[in-house]
Amino acid sequence: MSDRPRAVRIHEEGPREGFQIEPGPIATADKIALVDALSSSGVRKIQVASFVNPKRVPGWVDADAVVRGFEPRAGVEFTALWLNAQGLERAVQHRDKLALRGSISMCASEPFLMRNQNRNFEQNLVVQRDQIAIFRQHGIEVDAISVMAAFGCNFAGDIPLSALLTTIADAFAIAEESDITIREVRLADSMAWANPDMIRRFVGGVRDKWPHVRVSLHLHDTRGLGIANAYAGLDMGVDTFDSSVAGLGGCPFAGHKGAAGNVCTEDLVFMCEEMGIATGIDLEQLVAAAQLAERIVGHPLPGSVMHGGSLRRFR
Amino acid sequence: MSDRPRAVRIHEEGPREGFQIEPGPIATADKIALVDALSSSGVRKIQVASFVNPKRVPGWVDADAVVRGFEPRAGVEFTALWLNAQGLERAVQHRDKLALRGSISMCASEPFLMRNQNRNFEQNLVVQRDQIAIFRQHGIEVDAISVMAAFGCNFAGDIPLSALLTTIADAFAIAEESDITIREVRLADSMAWANPDMIRRFVGGVRDKWPHVRVSLHLHDTRGLGIANAYAGLDMGVDTFDSSVAGLGGCPFAGHKGAAGNVCTEDLVFMCEEMGIATGIDLEQLVAAAQLAERIVGHPLPGSVMHGGSLRRFR
Repeated sequence: MSDRPRAVRIHEEGPREGFQIEPGPIATADKIALVDALSSSGVRKIQVASFVNPKRVPGWVDADAVVRGFEPRAGVEFTALWLNAQGLERAVQHRDKLALRGSISMCASEPFLMRNQNRNFEQNLVVQRDQIAIFRQHGIEVDAISVMAAFGCNFAGDIPLSALLTTIADAFAIAEESDITIREVRLADSMAWANPDMIRRFVGGVRDKWPHVRVSLHLHDTRGLGIANAYAGLDMGVDTFDSSVAGLGGCPFAGHKGAAGNVCTEDLVFMCEEMGIATGIDLEQLVAAAQLAERIVGHPLPGSVMHGGSLRRFR
Repeated sequence: MSDRPRAVRIHEEGPREGFQIEPGPIATADKIALVDALSSSGVRKIQVASFVNPKRVPGWVDADAVVRGFEPRAGVEFTALWLNAQGLERAVQHRDKLALRGSISMCASEPFLMRNQNRNFEQNLVVQRDQIAIFRQHGIEVDAISVMAAFGCNFAGDIPLSALLTTIADAFAIAEESDITIREVRLADSMAWANPDMIRRFVGGVRDKWPHVRVSLHLHDTRGLGIANAYAGLDMGVDTFDSSVAGLGGCPFAGHKGAAGNVCTEDLVFMCEEMGIATGIDLEQLVAAAQLAERIVGHPLPGSVMHGGSLRRFR
């Protein structure tokens, strides 16, 4: 199980996560400038906008304009978030620039699902079946299962591995009904309950049961363990991580304020590159993008390497 | 080699490290209040003051008053830092309250040693022999070797494992001359060059060569890898860590500003306790001490759990 990858794939979510949580309005041009800075640093997959209800997330009222504005770049996938059929309809208008990919969206905590989506486990399975039908109508491939609150929940407490495996198995059952091949299971530590031992155990448990599926990690750093959790993931063969430049963002629904959000992209890239794991990213350019993000939001962001500097200048 | 400890010992250095680096004067009573808050949280070893040249480190002009002022507590060791014979003379005046313990002070980087102490490797060996004689005059036991810049240096670049082993072997040779039994080798990542793989390799290398000696780690978090490095240390059997409440502090001589200092005590305690490794510390009380430290310095400190909260209230 301890098959350390030689290279990792990073899905940069800073623009989407970060600008959703900022209190003040961020200029559309600034959002576009950050996306362009990220794509030119070598990041291959960037979530550029969120097609959500602007009444609920006013920071993304300009999602369409941001998608229209960024510079496409060969070899880079640009993605967007949506939470319902209306959001997907908006994203589909941009399929010339966006890589649209469907996933079966699960949550390992029923209280969190109720709170975020206002549905229980059973109701969510119905919604997911409907979603698959909608994806198919649009010709969008579904090949992933995404699980929120995979490691624990502020409203449900600890999530046992057995509960996570049941949640994933439910999603595989839906996939099988629809003749869908799942290639990736994405585990999200939405409220920062994971520790490195738990990452090993849970990733190991998922891989034991579905050995041919890629496990990816979406980690939060609220309690300071984000990078250590990523390290444990690498040890378990995880080669795909979501992260956020400068540590931008956080989940506005998770019930804690003032704390760090997603694991920081340039800190993760620094660790990987120092350990000989290729990221394809130019760390100095990425740090410059992080510093741009800090200038845009106008307050210090939690990234470390962007403040402490990389080691290149000392070698 | 991968013998995870069941319990860890934490040497809290926040008061000493933190107040040395703050630009403004910190009231003596505040320093004392933080030491008392830490000792009542269950921390068993606390570095309370620095007997250094007040012209060089004005933040510790009141070291004697701080040591006179804190409340002794059964089962807690209070330590202090000194860098030369004058400093030691001052510390010895407080042996009723301070646990004085000598160490052979090495540095794996000659440029850093020159810059910090104005001596080369050879000259340092002479100084260390003299130090041992002075410790003996005072009846202070010497049982540790401490190595600065053990993993890399802003002025020398990467430190190869072979260079670290040579540095430690030189110290063991001095110990043997003086009939001293070394029980601990303390590796300090003074300028935050370590990554988790390096921690494994270097700690493993030291343990292979001196299997009966405890290896302890002094980690910095300047580039965001402090907790991940501690995790790798735990995996290698390390059970003794220096750390700093709220992430107070940093090395004023290391050539980088605005960056995080020592690995944060409560984040480390949180990780250990979540993984079933006992610390003997009450995390909620420790978080309260971290929040006190933040109020004392009057600006945000880098700790995560102190802002994000522990998980106790959700279980």
